[in-house]
Amino acid sequence: MKRGVLMIVSGPSGSGKGTIVKQLENDDNIKVSVSATTRKPRAGEEHGVHYYFMEKDEFLSCVDDGEMLEYNEYCENYYGTPLMGVEPFLKEGKDVILEIDVNGAKQVSKIMKCVKLFILPPSMQLLKKRLCLRGTETEEALNIRLNQAHFEMEQAYNYDYLVVNDNIDDAVNKVKSILIAQRHRVFNMKDKLDELLK
Amino acid sequence: MKRGVLMIVSGPSGSGKGTIVKQLENDDNIKVSVSATTRKPRAGEEHGVHYYFMEKDEFLSCVDDGEMLEYNEYCENYYGTPLMGVEPFLKEGKDVILEIDVNGAKQVSKIMKCVKLFILPPSMQLLKKRLCLRGTETEEALNIRLNQAHFEMEQAYNYDYLVVNDNIDDAVNKVKSILIAQRHRVFNMKDKLDELLK
Repeated sequence: MKRGVLMIVSGPSGSGKGTIVKQLENDDNIKVSVSATTRKPRAGEEHGVHYYFMEKDEFLSCVDDGEMLEYNEYCENYYGTPLMGVEPFLKEGKDVILEIDVNGAKQVSKIMKCVKLFILPPSMQLLKKRLCLRGTETEEALNIRLNQAHFEMEQAYNYDYLVVNDNIDDAVNKVKSILIAQRHRVFNMKDKLDELLK
Repeated sequence: MKRGVLMIVSGPSGSGKGTIVKQLENDDNIKVSVSATTRKPRAGEEHGVHYYFMEKDEFLSCVDDGEMLEYNEYCENYYGTPLMGVEPFLKEGKDVILEIDVNGAKQVSKIMKCVKLFILPPSMQLLKKRLCLRGTETEEALNIRLNQAHFEMEQAYNYDYLVVNDNIDDAVNKVKSILIAQRHRVFNMKDKLDELLK
């Protein structure tokens, strides 16, 4: 079985990356990685579906054992990407999507071969509008979020691919094309060429 | 208008690259480059459609003026890729396909930004069969062609993408995916990101 492609998807809040990733999940050949967290499950959240829920000591021992591809702390809880939610699917030949931020992307790309995709809004005006629709109430909160978006987007130069999300179906198809292309990069096809030439 | 992608397509005789390129031509966003040659037109061949037919001195003055992206001599005739059959279409935003051999690919990639795709047969047995069906009559001629194919395929390690042509529609779709992906490589999207961040 040919190993799948590991793809990191990042983008600012309001870029629509979550919606894109959700649509990708409908493809049988694509697995969206489930994060681990030490926060308590909310109503309706299932272990292994929404998150892998862990105790703090369990989480930190995973980190020590190199079983977290990346992690961070937020509001006194840990969030991370467990290797066990990634590696088995890649081996099965599935493409695996990690929806993580720019810092997580840096951590993962140091230790695993992956392709990094950044989702962009069509314009900053539209990003602002989307953030308002999400209920960012005060002018101050909105400015904080816009500054954060700007900061994250400055890191996009370090990504491999950029997709502007002006239409969700188009954006999803573009991401799928990138996954197909990635499978045909020469370093992913070397075994086949070796076999033909032997 | 966003500049198109220049894609080189190579592959041994019998890989089916010609059929793939012909199908790509049906896409309005793709232009297949027309070669120039100094050989005489055959019945039914049209200038600007099958080839740009040129006199030898005209061809060689194009080479001197840097107006040939690549060229070679075969059976006392020159064959080449005129820049005028490539650059205007890229500027119009079309993706341009050059169906050229491994030597031509080397020449072009030195002077223009391009992506290099190599088409592979599913197996050497099948390649042999396809060459037989094309009327390679003698055992000797067949062996020469197979050796040539082997030599060309050894150069495929220097390409960017490899596609195995086991099904023509699949192969065409893969090539189209690669073109879409290529348009979203970070170096082709830099202008959009600059614009968003300014």
